[in-house]
Amino acid sequence: MITVFNSLSRSKETFVPSSKNHIGMYLCGPTVYSEAHLGHGRTGVSFDVIRRWFEYRGFNVRFVSNVTDVGHITTETDDDGVDRIGQRAKLEQLEPMEIADKYMWSYFQDLAALGVKKPSITPRATGHILEQIEMVQRLIANGHAYERDGSVYFRVRSFPKYGHLSGKKIDDLEHGTREDVREDKEDPLDFALWKFAEPEHIMRWNSPWGEGFPGWHIECSAMALKYLGENFDIHAGGLDLQFPHHEAEIAQAEGAGYAFAKYWLHGNMLTIGGEKMSKSKGNFITLADFYQQKAEPMVLRLAYIQSHYRSIAEIGDEIIEGAKTALSRLREVKRELERRIPEASSGENPSLEKALEKAVTEFEAALDDDFNTPKGLAAVFDLTREVNTALTAGTGRSSLEKALNFYNTFVGGVLGLYHSAQSTATDDAQLLEGLMQIAIEARGVYRQNRDFSRSDGLRERLKSLGVTLEDTASGTRWKLEG
Amino acid sequence: MITVFNSLSRSKETFVPSSKNHIGMYLCGPTVYSEAHLGHGRTGVSFDVIRRWFEYRGFNVRFVSNVTDVGHITTETDDDGVDRIGQRAKLEQLEPMEIADKYMWSYFQDLAALGVKKPSITPRATGHILEQIEMVQRLIANGHAYERDGSVYFRVRSFPKYGHLSGKKIDDLEHGTREDVREDKEDPLDFALWKFAEPEHIMRWNSPWGEGFPGWHIECSAMALKYLGENFDIHAGGLDLQFPHHEAEIAQAEGAGYAFAKYWLHGNMLTIGGEKMSKSKGNFITLADFYQQKAEPMVLRLAYIQSHYRSIAEIGDEIIEGAKTALSRLREVKRELERRIPEASSGENPSLEKALEKAVTEFEAALDDDFNTPKGLAAVFDLTREVNTALTAGTGRSSLEKALNFYNTFVGGVLGLYHSAQSTATDDAQLLEGLMQIAIEARGVYRQNRDFSRSDGLRERLKSLGVTLEDTASGTRWKLEG
Repeated sequence: MITVFNSLSRSKETFVPSSKNHIGMYLCGPTVYSEAHLGHGRTGVSFDVIRRWFEYRGFNVRFVSNVTDVGHITTETDDDGVDRIGQRAKLEQLEPMEIADKYMWSYFQDLAALGVKKPSITPRATGHILEQIEMVQRLIANGHAYERDGSVYFRVRSFPKYGHLSGKKIDDLEHGTREDVREDKEDPLDFALWKFAEPEHIMRWNSPWGEGFPGWHIECSAMALKYLGENFDIHAGGLDLQFPHHEAEIAQAEGAGYAFAKYWLHGNMLTIGGEKMSKSKGNFITLADFYQQKAEPMVLRLAYIQSHYRSIAEIGDEIIEGAKTALSRLREVKRELERRIPEASSGENPSLEKALEKAVTEFEAALDDDFNTPKGLAAVFDLTREVNTALTAGTGRSSLEKALNFYNTFVGGVLGLYHSAQSTATDDAQLLEGLMQIAIEARGVYRQNRDFSRSDGLRERLKSLGVTLEDTASGTRWKLEG
Repeated sequence: MITVFNSLSRSKETFVPSSKNHIGMYLCGPTVYSEAHLGHGRTGVSFDVIRRWFEYRGFNVRFVSNVTDVGHITTETDDDGVDRIGQRAKLEQLEPMEIADKYMWSYFQDLAALGVKKPSITPRATGHILEQIEMVQRLIANGHAYERDGSVYFRVRSFPKYGHLSGKKIDDLEHGTREDVREDKEDPLDFALWKFAEPEHIMRWNSPWGEGFPGWHIECSAMALKYLGENFDIHAGGLDLQFPHHEAEIAQAEGAGYAFAKYWLHGNMLTIGGEKMSKSKGNFITLADFYQQKAEPMVLRLAYIQSHYRSIAEIGDEIIEGAKTALSRLREVKRELERRIPEASSGENPSLEKALEKAVTEFEAALDDDFNTPKGLAAVFDLTREVNTALTAGTGRSSLEKALNFYNTFVGGVLGLYHSAQSTATDDAQLLEGLMQIAIEARGVYRQNRDFSRSDGLRERLKSLGVTLEDTASGTRWKLEG
């Protein structure tokens, strides 16, 4: 029995899937006009673990996560008509779609390095213009939207539930809107569903209202319903999207006559040294830069999941150093188990058996309780102490095998921490060259000592690893077979 | 001055770009309903090298390559209404888009392993339904298309140039069509632009002709024009697509009133042991299987480019063995140059200088001549013999540096053969473990011989490589820093 915190009810609820074995899950994906940063990484990892937990619990998860490749509005009132992708395109002298594709690939590469599984479906906003236009037409027909000069707006006051998800009241919202509202809206609260394209706007499509482009919010309503159907299980996203984006999504979908997501899950933000990450504070960091300057991706993944997804996660240098050590321990214990199991004496180790039972119970209880990864990790580290004791004793092979299975299933499969990052070619080459020089020197010493059985043995062992040695006038060269 | 073989004129022509520094290039991409195979790999590599050559020659290439995620018709007459993606989806109990996404990711992963650069833009057919509908509407308005019972067909006889690209005559084509033509077409030659969706068809969109889906050919005309504009430079694809797909593309684009591609480049097929690859012959192999069973991706890349892109390429076991050896030589010479340059005496090596000049001239002439990669490779291997001689002499550092630059620019940059494939974790781990055991044993021997300066030196060298040793009761363990 899995319990999830549903933002809609602001409480933990027992998760009841819409179908016995299948779960439909939608996650708001990135706007692809710049490199992915630590915030993208956290959202990706949080819901990747949640997806993996559902899979562990036997569900077949259809995980849909969109790519916003239509530039969207930058101001909170959503109506100044600035297209971010278009702006950047002019700067770089590129076609907007070229920018979108470039950053889409880099986004998925950066997230793959974190061990985040690819979504089942990655719909692109520009790939679903027809579906968005049709939803806008339904909203107009249902009285929830109206056209003004080639743009279409959602009539917020026609949907009294607006604000329900984020706990805001429509009348309070009114005071928060800016002064410089466009004259053509009935109400400053109304948001754009379709926007008239000014002549300088590059991305544009024909529509019943002339040439234009979709508003930011409409894509998610249209694409979630297209690929998951009505009444799907889970809609997820960052907390910063709860208002107005998710409110708008609900209003659009329900206004068009469709039942929408049953559970809304929101992931929290992160801090660096206690401060919110932002360009103005100078602590903004992309994932690619983090991997180069701070630590390998798996360290970051561990640092993320040391916090519960609904808590603020601190990702400062101290946390990263701690995560490095913790990750080493998790890798070390797995490596030692693999190395020592073949030589361990057979049979059970009673105290390890007990520790394993406790670890499984605690890990499962933690993850079932709204995906509590820090508690799950605590269970893992408790177990690790016991395993290390058992390894020193070197007894109880079947218990050690069970322990290895625990790490593979929970630390590898569910938490995704054994994903092998592609190490940089430079590091690899350097390490390889260094180790080869050590081996070549050893062979020289053995021969000097006339210990030919060792020197020949070394050569054979290298050969079985695919390395051949060649003695030349200028020294011994090595070659790795392709 | 680059010369290209233009299928339109069936002759080599001087390449004249449409804009001074920019080239627009469109390549027909995969239908994503199954794993990519050797044929996909060859097409990808052929046009990747051509793109890289244009880039070497100073052009900014916008490389557009589509993803066909609408299942298309299987018979040559294009009218039995079978949707391949839909079929497979029912089989696997998946949403068609889930299949399409799965194989789209695996396609780009398999091609990335071959060092094929990502396209600038990868438009998906399902992402451009609106553009395709609009083109069909224009074709109807221009008298080149007509609707029958919810489907729209291209009126082939209204476009007398049809057959021009592939050298076929319309009247001859008539005899080749099947008997079981649909009654609703004016002429058996006519092909579908839009298809009425039967109730069992999953992928469907609203259109002016009711719910349906686009014909296979229309996507490329619509998407090439959208992202490259009229009169773009190069349209590329496999020879098997020349008829009917590329004929249809031209007919659609020009019929709709747009000037289309200026140069048409076609890549040839491959054989295995002299036979065409096919499932029925049992010699069909996917890229993923090839990498696992035959050789690493770079060997395959080299095997491909040992043939000219317009020739049939033989990819049998003998060729692969030869490519392994050749690739080792190319890697070896680069590694040796990098290793030996710091210790070489300064100055020039006159005979190497002469060989380098010759190699550059020959390589450039070969690639300028319709991208003749086998001739380019011959120039590389001629040079390699000279470089090896120079390396033995160990003199002429500046010439050796120029040689290294040659390999990096031409073998690495243009031919793309120094792309480091992600080696499998298993191989890496095995090699690392093997080398570490050799190092640990050597340290044991040094200590046994009371040669502590060597044993401490070894430990320090490992440390500088990020490896720490720990002596325990059960032997020495090693650990790689994260």
